[in-house]
Amino acid sequence: MVKSILILLLTASVASADVNRWGIFELTLQGPKEGNPYTDVDLVGTFTQGDRTLKVNGFYDGGGTYRVRFMPDTIGEWKYTTASNRKELRDKSGTINVIAPEKNNHGPVRVRNGYHFEYADGTPHFSIGTTCYAWTHQPEAMEEQTLATLKTSPFNKIRMCIFPKWYNYNKGEPPRYPYEGTPPNKWDTSRFNPAFFQHLEKRIAQLRDRNIEADLILFHPYDGGHWGFDRMSQEADDRYLKYVVARLAAYRNVWWSFANEFDFMKTKTAADWSRYIDIVAKADPHNHLRSIHNGTVLFNQTHPLLTHASIQNGSAVSDFGRAVLYRDVYRKPIVFDEVKYEGDLPQRWGNLTPEEMVHRFWQGTIAGTYVGHSETYLDAKEEIWWSKGGVLRGKSVPRIAFLRKILEEGPREGMEPIDKWQYDRFAGKRDEYYLVYLGNEKPKEWAVEVPGKNAKPFKVKAEVLDTWNMTVKADEREFTLKRHADGYRLVADPPATIPLPGNPYMAIRLKVIPPK
Amino acid sequence: MVKSILILLLTASVASADVNRWGIFELTLQGPKEGNPYTDVDLVGTFTQGDRTLKVNGFYDGGGTYRVRFMPDTIGEWKYTTASNRKELRDKSGTINVIAPEKNNHGPVRVRNGYHFEYADGTPHFSIGTTCYAWTHQPEAMEEQTLATLKTSPFNKIRMCIFPKWYNYNKGEPPRYPYEGTPPNKWDTSRFNPAFFQHLEKRIAQLRDRNIEADLILFHPYDGGHWGFDRMSQEADDRYLKYVVARLAAYRNVWWSFANEFDFMKTKTAADWSRYIDIVAKADPHNHLRSIHNGTVLFNQTHPLLTHASIQNGSAVSDFGRAVLYRDVYRKPIVFDEVKYEGDLPQRWGNLTPEEMVHRFWQGTIAGTYVGHSETYLDAKEEIWWSKGGVLRGKSVPRIAFLRKILEEGPREGMEPIDKWQYDRFAGKRDEYYLVYLGNEKPKEWAVEVPGKNAKPFKVKAEVLDTWNMTVKADEREFTLKRHADGYRLVADPPATIPLPGNPYMAIRLKVIPPK
Repeated sequence: MVKSILILLLTASVASADVNRWGIFELTLQGPKEGNPYTDVDLVGTFTQGDRTLKVNGFYDGGGTYRVRFMPDTIGEWKYTTASNRKELRDKSGTINVIAPEKNNHGPVRVRNGYHFEYADGTPHFSIGTTCYAWTHQPEAMEEQTLATLKTSPFNKIRMCIFPKWYNYNKGEPPRYPYEGTPPNKWDTSRFNPAFFQHLEKRIAQLRDRNIEADLILFHPYDGGHWGFDRMSQEADDRYLKYVVARLAAYRNVWWSFANEFDFMKTKTAADWSRYIDIVAKADPHNHLRSIHNGTVLFNQTHPLLTHASIQNGSAVSDFGRAVLYRDVYRKPIVFDEVKYEGDLPQRWGNLTPEEMVHRFWQGTIAGTYVGHSETYLDAKEEIWWSKGGVLRGKSVPRIAFLRKILEEGPREGMEPIDKWQYDRFAGKRDEYYLVYLGNEKPKEWAVEVPGKNAKPFKVKAEVLDTWNMTVKADEREFTLKRHADGYRLVADPPATIPLPGNPYMAIRLKVIPPK
Repeated sequence: MVKSILILLLTASVASADVNRWGIFELTLQGPKEGNPYTDVDLVGTFTQGDRTLKVNGFYDGGGTYRVRFMPDTIGEWKYTTASNRKELRDKSGTINVIAPEKNNHGPVRVRNGYHFEYADGTPHFSIGTTCYAWTHQPEAMEEQTLATLKTSPFNKIRMCIFPKWYNYNKGEPPRYPYEGTPPNKWDTSRFNPAFFQHLEKRIAQLRDRNIEADLILFHPYDGGHWGFDRMSQEADDRYLKYVVARLAAYRNVWWSFANEFDFMKTKTAADWSRYIDIVAKADPHNHLRSIHNGTVLFNQTHPLLTHASIQNGSAVSDFGRAVLYRDVYRKPIVFDEVKYEGDLPQRWGNLTPEEMVHRFWQGTIAGTYVGHSETYLDAKEEIWWSKGGVLRGKSVPRIAFLRKILEEGPREGMEPIDKWQYDRFAGKRDEYYLVYLGNEKPKEWAVEVPGKNAKPFKVKAEVLDTWNMTVKADEREFTLKRHADGYRLVADPPATIPLPGNPYMAIRLKVIPPK
């Protein structure tokens, strides 16, 4: 396997180097150490293939070292050169030979089919996220434990803060700080701490190698002024964003989340958020996914530079017919990145039963949306997955893995509501695949029918899914579905019911048998 | 009572005339008949009081008569003058003496408290609408019957199309057409038919005098090309909008609805709708409410010139926790202008039971939103209220009147969700008034509690409302509500329950007893 990061220590033009498609090409240059290299030195790399030109900002990595990182997204030869206000960093040119991606490298995730996601190579990405806000601010052993836990989990996305977190169950100083200075709050925000970002990059790369998207939270309120990273000047915020994008945009698994609970950051205005979005969208040539997450006030998710709606609202996925409403208003993928957490905290946001957590995943699924997990079981050491990572203690995770499997076996285009405002228990793909979720109801049988107006009958096979007990049981029959007189449904003819055990959280999967 | 419309036949400067606040001042001028007065002649009235200047377009009313209409919104003297490209219409100046409004004239409706409405004099307007799309295109006797029916109904808003309607149960030629020409589809869209608009104005004025808002639908798809008013040229559309605004904006009870089911009008683009909104907002100095209504695709209701969200989606008000979601995303009043209709049509949009129609009004209310009614009972003559008006046959109307009374007795600010994503059965005003709606449930009792974090206990009195049987029954007790240990609720201490009859559609009204 070709290494994803090629480190080239060069001060002049270089010969061609092999890089995997969607891997990282890194040009390393030596330049000035004096003055403030973070603010005094401009460095831009220009990458060209045929008619396409992409520009990326370089960054200072301490010790006189400057880097330009680039994620080539097409195979073949790319040429590059540098521009700088410093002679030592100027006109460094060369070529890159981009070869096929490694196995399991599907490229960055982008929007598919309006409301869903896929990797750049066309592989569907069914978002199954979790949250560990401060996992990269923990002792080494705990961070390794988090990675080990993630490796066997169903999660393909993790929400994580760049800045450390200071909040209930989270009051401790981190091993590293993003700036030069003295904790808790004497920082020179014009001088970054390379060791902090090198560590963060290492973790992002480890997630990438486990096929986990890093949903990077750029700002969050849970600092409360302790370090003050939540209330820096406009100039410091903007410099920080440009530095982060320069360092991290070449990692294919990066998503930009402008905030966790943006509306709880009282010193930032609507104009600030708008500026942040513009800065990141402009600086990132790789066009990673962009979102912003709310507390109690929703951001205007119709913003054209937000690729998907990241929403906190547990109630929207606690019953039928709710989550689907957000699809219509935003017309982009809906990701419920916070629906309360499975756990045993006294706060109502942290004590969902595992059954309710799994139910919320299914409610999101049946509405054509995506749901995120986290866990808040309190132990004596306050090592809660939701903030610090470590180990998972709950019961929802294997059931979420079961759901992921169902999604991966379903339509590649993603689960779509079949008749959005009429049949809130149905998703799938018309005339091909129907998933029916029955929620908290405990019926003893289910009458076979689907929404539709088809003039021609078709045949289906059925399976009963127990979403809690993680079983799939096939019904041996074939059902013929014919247009009902009301014109809105196709109903089994002769009428038929599928027996159910009388438990909650049941689902039925119907697959249309292709005509011979 | 001073007449609302003063008709002044003058060709030179006029003396001061008395007009009621929010009444109509009309300047009538004689000008050219030759050529095409609709397109060749410009006429603008400029009205000034102190620092304020408002401009209104005049319009041609046939027979050489031109009119400039103005709705003065402040008391005292206003000065006016005219500008025109024709000498006969230029520099006609005068003064208006604006006096207090008549009784029952509260001015135009505007947005109040973010999610609600009020009249310009501060009187709350609790929107209780109905729909009779084509009522002004019926024979005289039927139109008079509609007005008589409305007079004794609870409705304070009616949705109505300017253009006639050609649709199921609605296939007939109207008495008048908006343009010169020959039906069904030979029209000169550059020449309006004054008689058509004079008739429309008469009906709008009659609604006004009954305190009913005229929610005027400017475009709609239910023409299907029969007359072609749904597919005119851009130039014709724009001319039509300017003419309509010039004629009608001075009527205080006018609301502009850009479309019924905008997304079903396949020849119009997003750019068209945006242009229509701009044209009307710019031409209307009185800033009447502006909305647009959807079929299956929602319009982007975050548009800053849309004053409220006019939404078709019955499912959003058929169960708890749904309608409230639209408030957050749009942050303006939500009016469910179509939630399906009470009736007996075979189509699913036209066969709600009266119970379900009333339930949807209450679901909207408890979510801090507003719901609209209509009725689709089919008779042999196809005289359906929803399209033609006439008489009401359903059972929901008196229950909607009951709800209106409850709203009018409630907080002036409008019903607000008390804890929006947590307690979906509660609306009202914290610490003052709580309305609890129990929907389809049939409990035998209700445990007294409200959402809240108040440290200090307070006392409440309770009433049981039967929303279907329209009864209010007071409980004789006083309940003391104290903070619950979970920190999210105030619970009766000692614990108490209110007995209920075990029927659906019950509600409880709690009023806080002010401390002595």
